[in-house]
Amino acid sequence: MAPDAVSTTQHDHEHRDAVTTNTERLPGIELIELLTSIVGPDNVDIGDRISDDLCHDESLGAAPVRPGAAVRPVSTEEVAGVVRVAGSLGVPITARGSGTGLSGASIPVDGGIVVSFERMNRILEIDLANHVAVVEPGVTLADLDDELAPHQLVYPVFPGEQSASLGGNVATNAGGMRAVKYGVTRHHVLGLEVVLGTGEVIVSGGRFVKSTSGYDLTQLIVGSEGTLALVTKAILRLHPRPAHQATLLAPFATLDDVAKAVAPIVMSGVGPLVVEYLDVISMAGVTASAGFDLGIDQDLQARTLAYLVVVLEQHRVERLEQDAQDLAAQLSELGALDVFVLSDRAGAQLVEARERAFWAAKANGADEIVDVVVPRASIPEYLATVGRLSEESSSLAVGCGHAADGNVHLSVWQSDGPTRRELLHDIVAAGVALGGVVSGEHGIGTEKKAYLAEFEDPVKLDLYRRIKSIFDPVGILNPGTIFDLEPAESRTDHRQHRKGAGR
Amino acid sequence: MAPDAVSTTQHDHEHRDAVTTNTERLPGIELIELLTSIVGPDNVDIGDRISDDLCHDESLGAAPVRPGAAVRPVSTEEVAGVVRVAGSLGVPITARGSGTGLSGASIPVDGGIVVSFERMNRILEIDLANHVAVVEPGVTLADLDDELAPHQLVYPVFPGEQSASLGGNVATNAGGMRAVKYGVTRHHVLGLEVVLGTGEVIVSGGRFVKSTSGYDLTQLIVGSEGTLALVTKAILRLHPRPAHQATLLAPFATLDDVAKAVAPIVMSGVGPLVVEYLDVISMAGVTASAGFDLGIDQDLQARTLAYLVVVLEQHRVERLEQDAQDLAAQLSELGALDVFVLSDRAGAQLVEARERAFWAAKANGADEIVDVVVPRASIPEYLATVGRLSEESSSLAVGCGHAADGNVHLSVWQSDGPTRRELLHDIVAAGVALGGVVSGEHGIGTEKKAYLAEFEDPVKLDLYRRIKSIFDPVGILNPGTIFDLEPAESRTDHRQHRKGAGR
Repeated sequence: MAPDAVSTTQHDHEHRDAVTTNTERLPGIELIELLTSIVGPDNVDIGDRISDDLCHDESLGAAPVRPGAAVRPVSTEEVAGVVRVAGSLGVPITARGSGTGLSGASIPVDGGIVVSFERMNRILEIDLANHVAVVEPGVTLADLDDELAPHQLVYPVFPGEQSASLGGNVATNAGGMRAVKYGVTRHHVLGLEVVLGTGEVIVSGGRFVKSTSGYDLTQLIVGSEGTLALVTKAILRLHPRPAHQATLLAPFATLDDVAKAVAPIVMSGVGPLVVEYLDVISMAGVTASAGFDLGIDQDLQARTLAYLVVVLEQHRVERLEQDAQDLAAQLSELGALDVFVLSDRAGAQLVEARERAFWAAKANGADEIVDVVVPRASIPEYLATVGRLSEESSSLAVGCGHAADGNVHLSVWQSDGPTRRELLHDIVAAGVALGGVVSGEHGIGTEKKAYLAEFEDPVKLDLYRRIKSIFDPVGILNPGTIFDLEPAESRTDHRQHRKGAGR
Repeated sequence: MAPDAVSTTQHDHEHRDAVTTNTERLPGIELIELLTSIVGPDNVDIGDRISDDLCHDESLGAAPVRPGAAVRPVSTEEVAGVVRVAGSLGVPITARGSGTGLSGASIPVDGGIVVSFERMNRILEIDLANHVAVVEPGVTLADLDDELAPHQLVYPVFPGEQSASLGGNVATNAGGMRAVKYGVTRHHVLGLEVVLGTGEVIVSGGRFVKSTSGYDLTQLIVGSEGTLALVTKAILRLHPRPAHQATLLAPFATLDDVAKAVAPIVMSGVGPLVVEYLDVISMAGVTASAGFDLGIDQDLQARTLAYLVVVLEQHRVERLEQDAQDLAAQLSELGALDVFVLSDRAGAQLVEARERAFWAAKANGADEIVDVVVPRASIPEYLATVGRLSEESSSLAVGCGHAADGNVHLSVWQSDGPTRRELLHDIVAAGVALGGVVSGEHGIGTEKKAYLAEFEDPVKLDLYRRIKSIFDPVGILNPGTIFDLEPAESRTDHRQHRKGAGR
């Protein structure tokens, strides 16, 4: 995937080999005894007994950290007990689902407690009358989907990694390819049971979509990356599961043509499930990684600058076929160089390969990834800027993304740390300048908080800090994630800064 | 609509005639001068010059209140200026759109300032590439819909009153009949510009669906009923507007049958736009008020206890017809006594009449309305309890509601104040006991805050108060709405109370 011109051997990821650097710092006896009294001796680990798996997430740039202790509670009461202990001793807590995050938000704090939800992995109920599922945070998307499929139901958020946990999905407001049709995690979380930083347990929402009965704490907690509360139960909205899917692949000569096709496709009424673009390098990378060939002739490939992948779904196969035909015709009119209606197998392969784009980039030695959102119509302008910035810094930034959502996923190759950091800064800045935000679905975590500190309105950052202090007065829940608890002195000078309105 | 057995003449709504009771309390010269300096002399009214229209909303039980001053700002800057003035003098502010609220949230505070958004009524942009609209808060749903229809776009929240303002819809998280397909206001508000209680202006969100970049302040402000911030701009998500609709009407012998039909209808994949039930009294009331007859024979009517109304929409008329046929057959299998596929005209009439149900009830002298949400499968049990409670108190409680959303709208006839208050309390309590909440879409306002104080977890009420204190440190934004700024002493004893988890 990386061209020869870019070295993929000299990364500054050496920290990946240094996972045990901080293991000497063991927690006090008092903490261990208290934690053991809550979750039992079999469910507290310290020092070298803590699995390396708990020390990192999947972000490319973040250094792993060994926590002081890892606990595996099995109930809300145990979670609340752990939080109370941590609060009384002022020890930071990091909640952890499957550890598939990409922003460092589930990387432990040095000397802190990791609360692993691996034992709270029960699907408590599939409520067929109300079309909701009640799950514990450790349930994976794959497990839930396996349970729902026989009922012809679906929890429609597919962020691309089915081993991810629902708790993690709630924390990051996970998105994925199907957001153009179904929205993101927050649109499907109807209610939560959570433990606040005080150890208090609250329940928000319920088995219904409508409520105007006080502030929506559910929505505030979704996407808060473990900084406001630990999720111990989630009530999820389910949808009927259409039986049939069709995948269309359309090569385009320019990204501008790809972007201009999105609004007409949505307007056509086919209700696309997926509208993805891939630049040619990403397409080559993901198909090669997945070990298959699209069978597109060389001449056509040579004229192609970007691919559009559209997936349709329908309950009736004849409607699907009609929609696929109409969409193919529409794509041709919209400037597609060709349109391929893929076989079920090829379609599934391509979508799966696209879902694995991050892993393909990682395997090819990508140094960093970007998850900026811009208004979708601004994607071409944004990617033109990204291309210019990459060229100027002799870097490579290629990618794919959610064309209908304006969510651009870039993989960046630039082995020189300072050059890479400057490039990434400028790439994020360019997105914000177009009315976008730092992260569409990966979250800010620890890895992007400097961007938020720089580009976000200080008035809002101040609101964030104050909101956190309400939910977590001692500051033990994932401190240092999204924002630092104390603003940097230099940033307080920016208080007059205002974003453009109506962006 | 009200049976003879219930007196509709002796209401205790006399306060409606007493709108000018508190007019003697005029604001100080300093306040008037400061407000005038911001919005100009033509846009500040005091005393009798304040229109009676600004003194009330449409809630049946709430007493109108004359504010100290009414201002009509024309820009965000003017709104911010008014808020700063109010903050410096500690004068309460009530934001006002069209005044169509049903919970008292837009009724002024005695001696306070009403900020009327009647001059901030511009549709700033219809962004066809990104499918968003940017509007000022005073834009009405009707105005927006008129602007969108020629573009085959729709803002899909239809709470039943098209003269309502978008600002009011954001404040109450308005819902309506189409929520089964499209969700509620919060699902379509992508971003906001708001003025905080400090006078600071912030912008949240943007022209995109996906974001995990700090806490979602947009979602926190939606549904906050003017207590956290004044909305000065909203970025709304638009959807393609299907060209064709079909309305089916199915009489059922029991409410249980109606409720049991909902999940299968949703599962069938027809994607219903509307799934409403009406009890027989409500159906008689709304059709009589609208002046039309459904043409259902007396014998069938006599066997009917509730009607189900389902509206479908499609881009293709042949699909609509097929779906309507299939749905009709499904409804028969599900126990419908008959199924009528209405003509376009009759369907539109019926839906419009249903939308006017509140006005029909009001015209028939209803004393109070209820807007409880329960899990949708619990509607029959809930309505059975409501029936028993009504009978025991010699009252009448009838209604209709959003069957697929569990959102029950009841009109209550009971002219005796204490009896009515006890009944309403018990009706709300019964909903909460089933895992429901006080209000699905009307909001808590001032009229239902006693219920929230009683039934909501005190830990959450405490969080609400603290959140408000962050956004509005002086406590000037709609104080006394949703909750009292200071908790009643007696309620602090309940801090150990916990709601059932996973409800």
